[in-house]
Amino acid sequence: MINENRYFDSNPEVRNIATELYMDVKDLPIISPHGHVDPKIFAENNPFPDPTELFIIPDHYIFRMLYSQGYSLESLGIPTQDGTPVEKDHRKIWQILGNNFYLYAGTPTGAWLTHEFAEVFGVTEKLNGENALAIYDLMSERLQSPEFLPRTLFNNFNIEVISTTDGASDNLEYHKQILDSDWNGKIIPSFRPDAVVNILADNWKSEIDKLSSSSGIDVRDYKSFIKAIENRREFFIKMGAVATDQGVLSPYTHELLENEADTIFQRALIGTATKSDEAAFVGKMLMQMARMSCEDKLVMQIHPGVFRNHNASLFQKFGLDKGGDIPISTEYTKNLQELLNKYGNHPNFKVIVFTLDETSYSRELAPLAGHYPAMKLGPAWWFNDSIQGMRRFREMATESAGFYNTVGFNDDTRAFLSIPARHDLARRVDCNFLAQQVSEHIIDIETAHKLSYELANGLVKKAYNL
Amino acid sequence: MINENRYFDSNPEVRNIATELYMDVKDLPIISPHGHVDPKIFAENNPFPDPTELFIIPDHYIFRMLYSQGYSLESLGIPTQDGTPVEKDHRKIWQILGNNFYLYAGTPTGAWLTHEFAEVFGVTEKLNGENALAIYDLMSERLQSPEFLPRTLFNNFNIEVISTTDGASDNLEYHKQILDSDWNGKIIPSFRPDAVVNILADNWKSEIDKLSSSSGIDVRDYKSFIKAIENRREFFIKMGAVATDQGVLSPYTHELLENEADTIFQRALIGTATKSDEAAFVGKMLMQMARMSCEDKLVMQIHPGVFRNHNASLFQKFGLDKGGDIPISTEYTKNLQELLNKYGNHPNFKVIVFTLDETSYSRELAPLAGHYPAMKLGPAWWFNDSIQGMRRFREMATESAGFYNTVGFNDDTRAFLSIPARHDLARRVDCNFLAQQVSEHIIDIETAHKLSYELANGLVKKAYNL
Amino acid sequence: MINENRYFDSNPEVRNIATELYMDVKDLPIISPHGHVDPKIFAENNPFPDPTELFIIPDHYIFRMLYSQGYSLESLGIPTQDGTPVEKDHRKIWQILGNNFYLYAGTPTGAWLTHEFAEVFGVTEKLNGENALAIYDLMSERLQSPEFLPRTLFNNFNIEVISTTDGASDNLEYHKQILDSDWNGKIIPSFRPDAVVNILADNWKSEIDKLSSSSGIDVRDYKSFIKAIENRREFFIKMGAVATDQGVLSPYTHELLENEADTIFQRALIGTATKSDEAAFVGKMLMQMARMSCEDKLVMQIHPGVFRNHNASLFQKFGLDKGGDIPISTEYTKNLQELLNKYGNHPNFKVIVFTLDETSYSRELAPLAGHYPAMKLGPAWWFNDSIQGMRRFREMATESAGFYNTVGFNDDTRAFLSIPARHDLARRVDCNFLAQQVSEHIIDIETAHKLSYELANGLVKKAYNL
Repeated sequence: MINENRYFDSNPEVRNIATELYMDVKDLPIISPHGHVDPKIFAENNPFPDPTELFIIPDHYIFRMLYSQGYSLESLGIPTQDGTPVEKDHRKIWQILGNNFYLYAGTPTGAWLTHEFAEVFGVTEKLNGENALAIYDLMSERLQSPEFLPRTLFNNFNIEVISTTDGASDNLEYHKQILDSDWNGKIIPSFRPDAVVNILADNWKSEIDKLSSSSGIDVRDYKSFIKAIENRREFFIKMGAVATDQGVLSPYTHELLENEADTIFQRALIGTATKSDEAAFVGKMLMQMARMSCEDKLVMQIHPGVFRNHNASLFQKFGLDKGGDIPISTEYTKNLQELLNKYGNHPNFKVIVFTLDETSYSRELAPLAGHYPAMKLGPAWWFNDSIQGMRRFREMATESAGFYNTVGFNDDTRAFLSIPARHDLARRVDCNFLAQQVSEHIIDIETAHKLSYELANGLVKKAYNL
Repeated sequence: MINENRYFDSNPEVRNIATELYMDVKDLPIISPHGHVDPKIFAENNPFPDPTELFIIPDHYIFRMLYSQGYSLESLGIPTQDGTPVEKDHRKIWQILGNNFYLYAGTPTGAWLTHEFAEVFGVTEKLNGENALAIYDLMSERLQSPEFLPRTLFNNFNIEVISTTDGASDNLEYHKQILDSDWNGKIIPSFRPDAVVNILADNWKSEIDKLSSSSGIDVRDYKSFIKAIENRREFFIKMGAVATDQGVLSPYTHELLENEADTIFQRALIGTATKSDEAAFVGKMLMQMARMSCEDKLVMQIHPGVFRNHNASLFQKFGLDKGGDIPISTEYTKNLQELLNKYGNHPNFKVIVFTLDETSYSRELAPLAGHYPAMKLGPAWWFNDSIQGMRRFREMATESAGFYNTVGFNDDTRAFLSIPARHDLARRVDCNFLAQQVSEHIIDIETAHKLSYELANGLVKKAYNL
Repeated sequence: MINENRYFDSNPEVRNIATELYMDVKDLPIISPHGHVDPKIFAENNPFPDPTELFIIPDHYIFRMLYSQGYSLESLGIPTQDGTPVEKDHRKIWQILGNNFYLYAGTPTGAWLTHEFAEVFGVTEKLNGENALAIYDLMSERLQSPEFLPRTLFNNFNIEVISTTDGASDNLEYHKQILDSDWNGKIIPSFRPDAVVNILADNWKSEIDKLSSSSGIDVRDYKSFIKAIENRREFFIKMGAVATDQGVLSPYTHELLENEADTIFQRALIGTATKSDEAAFVGKMLMQMARMSCEDKLVMQIHPGVFRNHNASLFQKFGLDKGGDIPISTEYTKNLQELLNKYGNHPNFKVIVFTLDETSYSRELAPLAGHYPAMKLGPAWWFNDSIQGMRRFREMATESAGFYNTVGFNDDTRAFLSIPARHDLARRVDCNFLAQQVSEHIIDIETAHKLSYELANGLVKKAYNL
């Protein structure tokens, strides 16, 4: 069920070259510069709970498919915001997954789960309605064994470094615990200021209060806000951070005068800011974050173009990240111009840009990354972090950006156990792409060997200064 | 000229698997849940006229290519609106097709015609200028034989059901005739209210009059309009309908208060409605049609994004459907939000969404269909109903929506004789896609066998409640 | 390093057919109907300078990649606008290219250079840091030999015709010199009026003065402006031109009344025209250029959708064409409607439309070209003039437009030595596409042989009346 030639072209010439290239990289350490794993699991190193708690309940990649086929989130045990009871029988929930595992055919989620079951748990039988509970019990048992403790898995997965994603005011206590422990695993934070930048968000003012207290700077105006951000970046750098991240609806960038920014900030404080205030403020903050990166050398990451919480009633009941985030068309050429004009030629600056709008790969992002020294193109992201999605990424981005203006793979996941599966899949797809290029005499085999290393390890280390 | 391995990958491993999968499905009945065949042909069961009348004059897929190369529609016998005379010599018109048949190389029209000539008429020679008239005569002769009568062809084509598309006020007399006849062929209507929804169309008021008389409800305001629509849906359901269909420029959906809708309706009645009135009214009617579907369980279909009658002078002279309809960029995430928020989680509701803007497959439609229980993704449509178009559809839609949030194939054709060709092509392309996935160990062969059936018959039956 | 099977599918069945088809066309003459080679090189027939001056300094395709990786344009010898000194040591600059040649892996620039080095200079070793200077010296020496004189290369490259691109007021002196010489090489101009159409450009008024003096018509209003344009087109036709070209931000077309156009023109003359004036004027001029083409039969070309000089500081320092032009999303269906409605059915008119927005191939351009007799679809352009870019072009355009509404290949280059490499690559990619279609039984081999000729020579001659 998990074939050694998986994701390689079935043409024997390509498959053989792909295999040769994959042999170079399959055992290289995993470098995970962008993701959402909870650092607490490594700080506490407690056993993982049962399979349902591990695989289904926290992972919207998985339960969105079941939801789309009519299973309520309640029946899948997803906790409600208001505490309305939901299904508590985890075996029953797992049975639903087993009954419906065929739905994931041809999806990356299906590929990752299959890999995890086989390679992490040794379960090679295909999950179905009949064997679901037996597999549940077997996996539950293994999860209690010492080799399934988070730190042990981290070591056995051959992970060199994982970056988490952390709010501006986060005290990074788990990162500290890990640093203070006798364990050597490298878990670094990255700085995500969205909660203090999105001035219309419900809890913005409480986030500003947290920013004041975490920075020790009384944030009462734009100037002190910026100082507090700078202060927190400094703290994150001390704690090992190499990068920032911003999730924005649009990558619009625009400089405001300080007093204009302050006027908006004051309106936000008294609750009268408008949608266009927020858009202007986010555009200004992208400029400021770029300026700070020129100064402190944190690598900037921009993840735009998601309409969050599209399904309003579901959001109200269950909260964020419940599978209802949907991409929108995203423009980069005009939106990024101010930022790239001001900072894109700066030797200290690196900005990694992601997209969910594949039309921008060949039209906008590869031409931009193939020109501006500061700009790099992030890998296929989220819905496109998939076999076909990565193939399209390489096919559409390589000719204008080259390989060397890309930055390797990001797993971007909160599902720790899926990390080896995701990196393995990415390495296979990249090796296969290189093999196709060799077989078509676009590149030679020597170049392909160099590139297989670069795509797996070299470029990511360089891009994120690791 | 019509090869048994057509449309399969030439890599022997893939081709062999594709062939194996195709064997499962090639003889399955044809289920055609969305199309434009005229029910009259089955009601009357008269012989088809000559090849020119059958293949060229009614089919803009065919004559648009000849037009693009400089042949006037007059020279192709397309009737004018005002009765200005056009070419009447059908052999002469057919000769033009023969002389230019090479133009269709690499197009789906070319593939379908080649299949029809060979499989329906036994003509395996490639059409050209030399053999055109001989082929014309041979086909003319066959068309007069009893086995070419519409009902006989329907039976021999192994068609289980065809859905036609019918206006809101249509009395469905041909459907009645068929039901009342001793013939068992299943020809069901589907409900398309565009003519009464598009309040700026030239003949809207006469369409409203027809709606009044067909429903027996005096349509004089928004409320009676809605009642009349509900009445007609009820009639269509009695006549076997399982679905509705709406062709809209934009899939914008937005709730209006009843009095707002009525204000627009009243302006439309006195001829003072504006473009934005129409857009608002269409957006409201999509909401209403969804609401009705929750109640009466007709499956909703939305076909957006066509700039109709782009070539104004041609439209004026020859009318609708003359090859001058051109797609435009289409946004779904924001436009469908109101509809999906209100009805997308409803257990009775199914909405099948189509597109001519392929950029939306991976960016918007597959993520939406992979989340909302009510939403399904329609197959590659119109200009994309083609070998490469279907391949892109599967490559871009499967990873986020899975196979099971798609709905099988629609032939969407008025060309009855092309139906087996179209379904055969679709089955071949789907089997080939599955074979590639098997050969790359993305899915296993057992799964592929199940899916080949689902894509040919299973999903369409489920989606359209057939 | 330059393999005879390059760019062909590695599946032996496809490769063999591709090879067979390529044999038909590899030695056909090169027809280059659209490009930017300087006619002076053929008029004067002086030896080319050294490799750095030939390959790097004038070619933004090449130096943009080095710039993206942190090499300043100064260090690459790119001249500044204000004469600030830049690197003069051409061996040192070439060394940078050698050190970084690996960056071009998988890019068309890499493919072209590899071809040029091998086929034009006999250098088959892969360029790198060690061999860079030895290769520089060897190439420098060859450049001084008689067989490297421009006219000799032109003949040896088997070029039938090259079209240059020339401003409206250009006196075409080099074209005259070539015509008056005893050399038979066919170098024809094409008419590009952008400098007199873009009424907000810095030097627009001086361009209008040049137009007055070149045409002998005192351009003082819209009417005399149009007369002068017509006069210059007439001159270009006398000098052998077959086509015009316009680079526009948007392909928006709209008719203005003559007095409206004149009002804008007068505002432009006194420096008070606005951005929307310019957009309206460009839209009107596209209509006028189409009208003139109906009269004088010059083929119209439209190249839209480039945000020029995106990197403002670089533009200020180094001027135009320094690698900072970035594509934007481009709409055709609505924008071209007025032009196509008025002229798209005219028997004398041909308009070839290009795009950098690949999303428009299947959605807009192929449907338009597959309908309007006047409209043809230009080949994959600029960033998409590449192996994968051309594959996507054929895959997305063929099914709706057919092959015969496309116009063969454009090299669009100012790098004369790259012309054989570019045409060879295009022929290979097209033959491979045809071979895939044959191997999948979409077209037969006889059709493929005809089409391989059409794509290499037939269609371009027909489209450009050559």
